[in-house]
Amino acid sequence: MTDQEKQEMVVTPWDVSGNIDYDKLIEQFGVQRMTQSIVDRIAKHAGYKHLQLRRGVYLSHRDTDWWLSEYEKGNKVGLYTGRGPSGHVHLGHLLPWFFCKYLQDAFDAELYFQMTDDEKFLQRDDLTLEQAIEFTYDNALDIIACGFNPEKTHIFSDSDHIQHLYKLGLKVAKRTTFSTVRAVFGFNNSDNIGAIWHPALQMMVCFLQSEREGENIPCLIPAAIDQDPYWRITRDIAEKMGYYKPAQIHAKFLPGLDEGGKMSSSQPDSAIFTTDSPKKAAQKVMRAFTGGRDTVEEQKKLGGRPDICNVYAYYYFMFEDDDQKLVDREAICKSGELMCGTCKKQLAERVKAFLTDFQEKREKARKVLDDFLLKPVVK
Amino acid sequence: MTDQEKQEMVVTPWDVSGNIDYDKLIEQFGVQRMTQSIVDRIAKHAGYKHLQLRRGVYLSHRDTDWWLSEYEKGNKVGLYTGRGPSGHVHLGHLLPWFFCKYLQDAFDAELYFQMTDDEKFLQRDDLTLEQAIEFTYDNALDIIACGFNPEKTHIFSDSDHIQHLYKLGLKVAKRTTFSTVRAVFGFNNSDNIGAIWHPALQMMVCFLQSEREGENIPCLIPAAIDQDPYWRITRDIAEKMGYYKPAQIHAKFLPGLDEGGKMSSSQPDSAIFTTDSPKKAAQKVMRAFTGGRDTVEEQKKLGGRPDICNVYAYYYFMFEDDDQKLVDREAICKSGELMCGTCKKQLAERVKAFLTDFQEKREKARKVLDDFLLKPVVK
Repeated sequence: MTDQEKQEMVVTPWDVSGNIDYDKLIEQFGVQRMTQSIVDRIAKHAGYKHLQLRRGVYLSHRDTDWWLSEYEKGNKVGLYTGRGPSGHVHLGHLLPWFFCKYLQDAFDAELYFQMTDDEKFLQRDDLTLEQAIEFTYDNALDIIACGFNPEKTHIFSDSDHIQHLYKLGLKVAKRTTFSTVRAVFGFNNSDNIGAIWHPALQMMVCFLQSEREGENIPCLIPAAIDQDPYWRITRDIAEKMGYYKPAQIHAKFLPGLDEGGKMSSSQPDSAIFTTDSPKKAAQKVMRAFTGGRDTVEEQKKLGGRPDICNVYAYYYFMFEDDDQKLVDREAICKSGELMCGTCKKQLAERVKAFLTDFQEKREKARKVLDDFLLKPVVK
Repeated sequence: MTDQEKQEMVVTPWDVSGNIDYDKLIEQFGVQRMTQSIVDRIAKHAGYKHLQLRRGVYLSHRDTDWWLSEYEKGNKVGLYTGRGPSGHVHLGHLLPWFFCKYLQDAFDAELYFQMTDDEKFLQRDDLTLEQAIEFTYDNALDIIACGFNPEKTHIFSDSDHIQHLYKLGLKVAKRTTFSTVRAVFGFNNSDNIGAIWHPALQMMVCFLQSEREGENIPCLIPAAIDQDPYWRITRDIAEKMGYYKPAQIHAKFLPGLDEGGKMSSSQPDSAIFTTDSPKKAAQKVMRAFTGGRDTVEEQKKLGGRPDICNVYAYYYFMFEDDDQKLVDREAICKSGELMCGTCKKQLAERVKAFLTDFQEKREKARKVLDDFLLKPVVK
């Protein structure tokens, strides 16, 4: 494989790799670029501007302005996000969940959190259904540890909670042809009929709160942009089914510790899992790809390159909330004053502290897991 | 449409029309012809030879001899049949159910009775999901009225009982490609993704009893031969999944009151529904297609033609249990002694009596419906 092939951008719901050109994605996916007005309106309702909003993590959207307007008119609004539970959760997964919790608090919104254990089983030869379902409940602990509101959060396993999903899924499926999913997701004749069906289940969640509450509720989906094809085809059928089109707000990917791409479970050494021991996570940070030069001398002379540095990216996206301190760190990196070893060590300490705290919350989550699981509608 | 086009045989799970050539079907579907030995072994265990066995309703099978051998070795055996609830039940539906009840009694077998309301909704533009589910519970009354054992019969709606079906359905789906269902059922790109998924749910029931009871139990499916494609592809994956291949015993179709084809809900005047008033049913019989001649004179001279007569078929398949009396009726028909009007009137009386009794049982079934519905496994 040549370097060029290696870095060619691939972004589909099942594969994100290579160097990601977000401008190209915005154009390819036909979505709207994020605006300052949307950022400001979200911050106003939240009472503060989340790190991820300040740092441009949300680069594009569809109809988020409309969703905000509905809220501003005094209407109820909802949130939907999800997770494909094929392994343990890493920091890249937490990034949008933190933001989602911020949105839930800001807009007092019900959140439907889908665990697509069925899809993971259907797509992956190396995963049994029982394993995927086990990951659902393991990963649910991470979700809960993010601090979501138990009164307003509905986590569900496609497989275990199918009785609450199937009928609406059928109605979506009836309006979705093989031609459509083939064109959008690249299905072909050798794909299994479960995988072909599954988009209906991922689409139907856009309407689930409306269906359960018996009124039309605008739904916003904060998720990485690779999931966008689902919402594109959902938008095509929403109004025919009597629902609002779902709105989206798209996150960038948190880079892995290796060069390029997103943090990925399929490259375990490049990802920090919430189940890693703090010590192990720190070791991974110490081995991370940076924008450093080949020698200390060169680094002192030329300075580091935060623009291509994954360690810097971690400060930027998650571990340095203070904008001034971030600017300072960038400056001393570029000036050659800050060596990568020091910078990594500081990050490793923060990651360790974060994990220690998070893992405590994660353990406590076991006791309240049931409170967060989707319940039957009480009519 | 020419007469030839009109009568061209079409037999798929969704369409049975034209004059049916069972020899051709046996060859096309690659199934085994029924044997006297199988008929005798079933009768031996039942204690008597059912009308449908004596009259050759079961023309072909797959592995029914093996299923019998398992029973004869002292092993538990099971039954599976189903119904697509898109309307009311007619006599053509009851025919295999009567036989199924006979098998249940003879082999003390659990029966899993699938109501594919999801599929009917997915396949038909004129049916809402709610209507299809309503027909499930309406049709369940007919099933119960056939006299099945409430301790051993598990009726389930795909839509309402999906939580008991989905996981095993996913495992079947993972092993079934779009290529396969396209080749077998003729799906194409404009079919919806729900319809494409659904074969997995129909296939999985072959393994449902084994899965629920935690041991491998031979499953026999008494059903009309048009459903055979499902079992053919199920047999291909059964052993890979650790289950026995399902066995089948195939029924002929009960003809409609019109010429040719099977009794069909889509031609309501040609079908006698269990919800028809006895009077209305009698009127339908009086308008039935017969093998009679154009004039009374001709009939007296040439005799009737029971071989093409649907009224005779009704005596043959359902309403004349006495073999000698059937032979006598055939004789006086052929000799020109019996006129069609008289013969139809006699049948109409029997149909009326049957319906009066059946409708009483059907009403009583409302009270015990819950006993027959699929329950969660108690472990």
